[in-house]
Amino acid sequence: MEADTATLSLPTYEDVKAAHERIAPYIHRTPILTSSYLNGLTGADLFFKCENFQKAGAFKVRGACNAVFGLTEEQAARGVATHSSGNHALSLSYAAGRRGIPCYVVMPRTAPQAKKDAVRGYGGIITECEPSTSSREEVFARVQAETGAEFVHPYNDERVIAGQATCSKELLEDVGGLDAIVAPIGGGGMVSGTCLTCSAVAPYTEIYAAEPEAADDACQSFRKGEIVAYDAPQTIADGLKVPLKERTWHFVRNHVTDVLLASEQEIVDAMKLTWQRMKIVIEPSCAVPLAVILKNPDIFAGKRVGVIITGGNVDLDKLPWIDR
Amino acid sequence: MEADTATLSLPTYEDVKAAHERIAPYIHRTPILTSSYLNGLTGADLFFKCENFQKAGAFKVRGACNAVFGLTEEQAARGVATHSSGNHALSLSYAAGRRGIPCYVVMPRTAPQAKKDAVRGYGGIITECEPSTSSREEVFARVQAETGAEFVHPYNDERVIAGQATCSKELLEDVGGLDAIVAPIGGGGMVSGTCLTCSAVAPYTEIYAAEPEAADDACQSFRKGEIVAYDAPQTIADGLKVPLKERTWHFVRNHVTDVLLASEQEIVDAMKLTWQRMKIVIEPSCAVPLAVILKNPDIFAGKRVGVIITGGNVDLDKLPWIDR
Repeated sequence: MEADTATLSLPTYEDVKAAHERIAPYIHRTPILTSSYLNGLTGADLFFKCENFQKAGAFKVRGACNAVFGLTEEQAARGVATHSSGNHALSLSYAAGRRGIPCYVVMPRTAPQAKKDAVRGYGGIITECEPSTSSREEVFARVQAETGAEFVHPYNDERVIAGQATCSKELLEDVGGLDAIVAPIGGGGMVSGTCLTCSAVAPYTEIYAAEPEAADDACQSFRKGEIVAYDAPQTIADGLKVPLKERTWHFVRNHVTDVLLASEQEIVDAMKLTWQRMKIVIEPSCAVPLAVILKNPDIFAGKRVGVIITGGNVDLDKLPWIDR
Repeated sequence: MEADTATLSLPTYEDVKAAHERIAPYIHRTPILTSSYLNGLTGADLFFKCENFQKAGAFKVRGACNAVFGLTEEQAARGVATHSSGNHALSLSYAAGRRGIPCYVVMPRTAPQAKKDAVRGYGGIITECEPSTSSREEVFARVQAETGAEFVHPYNDERVIAGQATCSKELLEDVGGLDAIVAPIGGGGMVSGTCLTCSAVAPYTEIYAAEPEAADDACQSFRKGEIVAYDAPQTIADGLKVPLKERTWHFVRNHVTDVLLASEQEIVDAMKLTWQRMKIVIEPSCAVPLAVILKNPDIFAGKRVGVIITGGNVDLDKLPWIDR
């Protein structure tokens, strides 16, 4: 799958517009919320794009739907497959269900029962593997060979990036004159989509990627000018542990203004503050943008800032500010 | 304050329209959310009016703003006063702050520090009393005598009821053809406002009041045809412990279709389900409507039902489904 940028298949803004039409029947146009309290605290005008209210609980359903509904009838009949165990697996299962085709998900047998139940709840067909990269790749190859299902990568996929780009497209349509957009970065699918949209329709809007200090591979990549990947970083922002791949690195390298970091405590504090003041349930991953906005008033004060709330899938029995 | 209905000052729908214009600059027109999961579970089409996103975190800011901004300059100069320690105190402090007048709140010295801090955060001036009705009344009378402040009762007040009625006015403007509206009932301010609006503009919409079994005084009142009040009922739905008063009883008696009950466990389950599936933070009090809808499919299945989510002020460190 490695390739030079020169030969890399990358989506264009035409693909984003097509994606938006394609997926509109299957997704929510999510609301944008504001909070005068948080505006006061940060000195900025913040516009929160609430993808925690999205179908399947996260923005990933945009890319998944674009991939699934873009398949030919013949491809679709064989189904889709992935080896994510997070929001992408839920989203792909949801999208496949809406099209009435199978979705094969390879997950470690040690994955939490709640995650397996959630994938099955959306109709995903789980094949378990051992909790190692080699086992995962072996089992996934077997499932794909047996089914002929189309692999949909969680982020290093032009259809997925074009789908995620519809989120900032909606944000820019609904809120004019944004000086900046801040989005969390893990594999970089959402940030790449934001870059794709802004470079086409809002080239003066700055794009900040927000990342946990404890998994700062995108920041290191940005500083060094090449992809840096960690083996198994530990952070509460569990959606942000994965590394950039060549397609997302292309967008990050060319369009991101800066990658800003937040500590684990700053992430938990921003998460709790959001629940408390905005009355919305958000995942730790999407508290990272507010955390970096709070600690960088020199960058954000006085500006109109879009903030992508990426998802709301969180275990309500284990909240990071409550010791059990 | 006791009076026959014949001589009772009651608001009309003209008052509701005037209230809506008066308070519009100071409140949010809150969004209405839907959940296909909860629709599937209940067999109904549910429309959640999200007053948890309201200013000061609850619908009570509607009535408080209507009272505060309806005062003459002379009245306003002396400020407003109340002895609620919940959302009404926050809301009245917020409204008074927006008008730039003082708000005096009498609270038991034993009230949680977090509640005192929240009232002060909105600019309220607290005078502490002992945790007894006699002390509260004595201290409140003294504060009122010293300041000449206007007493704004949390619900037994025509200005407050007219203000709360703007919530169902917005709901009916935004969602057509509702068969029923379900709202929690404590003192009955929100339910009375809903009755006032529906009787004027949607007379065929049924109104259900949802109440904890453990504080079923409104249900008993409705069955017996006279106000029943309990001394100190214990329920997790702490906004719903207070009894009906003559103005709210007037509306409940004449316009409510039925009062439906939910157990403490059913309330906690509905609260957690709402956080989990709708990704919104709601108080226990406003989980009571969903709880009664879930247990009464014979009444609600197949219907278009408005659900008032009254507020989102909850202690995130003490969640009822997490033992500490």
